Amino acid sequence: MEKNRPLILVTNDDGMFAPGIKALVQVAMEFGEVVVVAPDSPQSAKGHAVTMQDPLRINQVNVFEGVDAYECTGTPVDCVKLAKYKVLDGRKIDLCVSGINHGSNASVNIIYSGTMSAAMEASLDEIPSIGFSLLNYSFDADFGPSKVIARKIIQSVLKNDLKETRLLNVNIPDQPLDQIRGVKVCRQADGRWVEEFQEGEDPRGQKYYWLTGRFILENVKEGTDIHALDSNYVSIVPSGHDLTIYPAISANKYLETIRL
Amino acid sequence: MEKNRPLILVTNDDGMFAPGIKALVQVAMEFGEVVVVAPDSPQSAKGHAVTMQDPLRINQVNVFEGVDAYECTGTPVDCVKLAKYKVLDGRKIDLCVSGINHGSNASVNIIYSGTMSAAMEASLDEIPSIGFSLLNYSFDADFGPSKVIARKIIQSVLKNDLKETRLLNVNIPDQPLDQIRGVKVCRQADGRWVEEFQEGEDPRGQKYYWLTGRFILENVKEGTDIHALDSNYVSIVPSGHDLTIYPAISANKYLETIRL
Repeated sequence: MEKNRPLILVTNDDGMFAPGIKALVQVAMEFGEVVVVAPDSPQSAKGHAVTMQDPLRINQVNVFEGVDAYECTGTPVDCVKLAKYKVLDGRKIDLCVSGINHGSNASVNIIYSGTMSAAMEASLDEIPSIGFSLLNYSFDADFGPSKVIARKIIQSVLKNDLKETRLLNVNIPDQPLDQIRGVKVCRQADGRWVEEFQEGEDPRGQKYYWLTGRFILENVKEGTDIHALDSNYVSIVPSGHDLTIYPAISANKYLETIRL
Repeated sequence: MEKNRPLILVTNDDGMFAPGIKALVQVAMEFGEVVVVAPDSPQSAKGHAVTMQDPLRINQVNVFEGVDAYECTGTPVDCVKLAKYKVLDGRKIDLCVSGINHGSNASVNIIYSGTMSAAMEASLDEIPSIGFSLLNYSFDADFGPSKVIARKIIQSVLKNDLKETRLLNVNIPDQPLDQIRGVKVCRQADGRWVEEFQEGEDPRGQKYYWLTGRFILENVKEGTDIHALDSNYVSIVPSGHDLTIYPAISANKYLETIRL
């Protein structure tokens, strides 16, 4: 339709009607032709799940004025796969942006995050991809400062390209713009969840466990995303999908002495 | 109950009644006290999904003679969380083994894999963890050679510890034992899925898309898991959860020049 403008795929994990995706669509429209393919229901913490046991459905919806938008019954990763192969039918996607997530995806949260898994799925096909998250879980969060930040990051990435990576994990402090000190490109902090299951009985007297938990950070080091966010910087972690721990290859060569 | 024997958590993503987990339980019992917490239904390709919107249930089941086993309504990662915090109530787990998966988790499949995500979840709490996968998707696959291989790897890891990592991704060629040439400790190969959605109409005339696909490997390099498997070696990739691409941190420092 619009020639010479970049084709931008927008997705998320909070679903088509989350305020965060609306903010991201508004920003993306300034830069190119936007197509939205997003889940029809909240899909937080779905990680890199894909739907294999069930069929998927997609429906065009009129949610964002002047933008083609499709809701999908599957996970965020399903949305990206359907966008690439069905909705856009193999057209070259110039940029994929995911979010703006309601809540942090810093530190190890990247591996649980549907927002980041969707962006990673696009990046696997060499599409430059950015996941945006605001450190506020509320539906009523103020996405005003996030829009300014997303605009500047998208502009810079479209101009400079991503270097040595195809995926950025961007987290934004929940602060007014004049309190945010700038941008730090950093590494993923160590952290982990300690679970506290809420226990109860359902109406039929059957016991259930409902996942909750606390996020634990020990020894937050300079150069990490959490350190940057704690200091009121936007954190950007260049990320990938190669989980190999390279120093451990030679350290574990003893396993090659196993005789079968 | 059994003192001084290691406590071994067994889980998988194919569900409690898959032949692969039975094979792994039989091997694990030779080394310690075994507790099984596994999904009550197949959970392949669920990645690192956790269940937040719904309550979870666990039921003790009598599937493996002499072994405490619990089926869980959630994902593989949910199973590990419930095992740690509810079933084992904070007892120290000495080893987590996941699988034996019916089908490969080599290359980028690690990020989609419920088997590997369960093992990774355990590794986040510093539990040495191993995911095993056999390169045969069939329910009737012969797990005889895999049992021999799993036994030797578990024995070696319990004796030597994992070095520089806490997580191994083990893939096993679908071959008779005398055709398997040994073990290679290697890195994750590059690869990606090309999707081909099966399209149809449901009984109500509504269009659906059902995910299928081909796995594409270009330029399989020596030192990768796929190269090892293609040469009839067992592949072991020491893996982690830090997705940072370190060389890209300095390469993308230009983003720090953004003025908000």
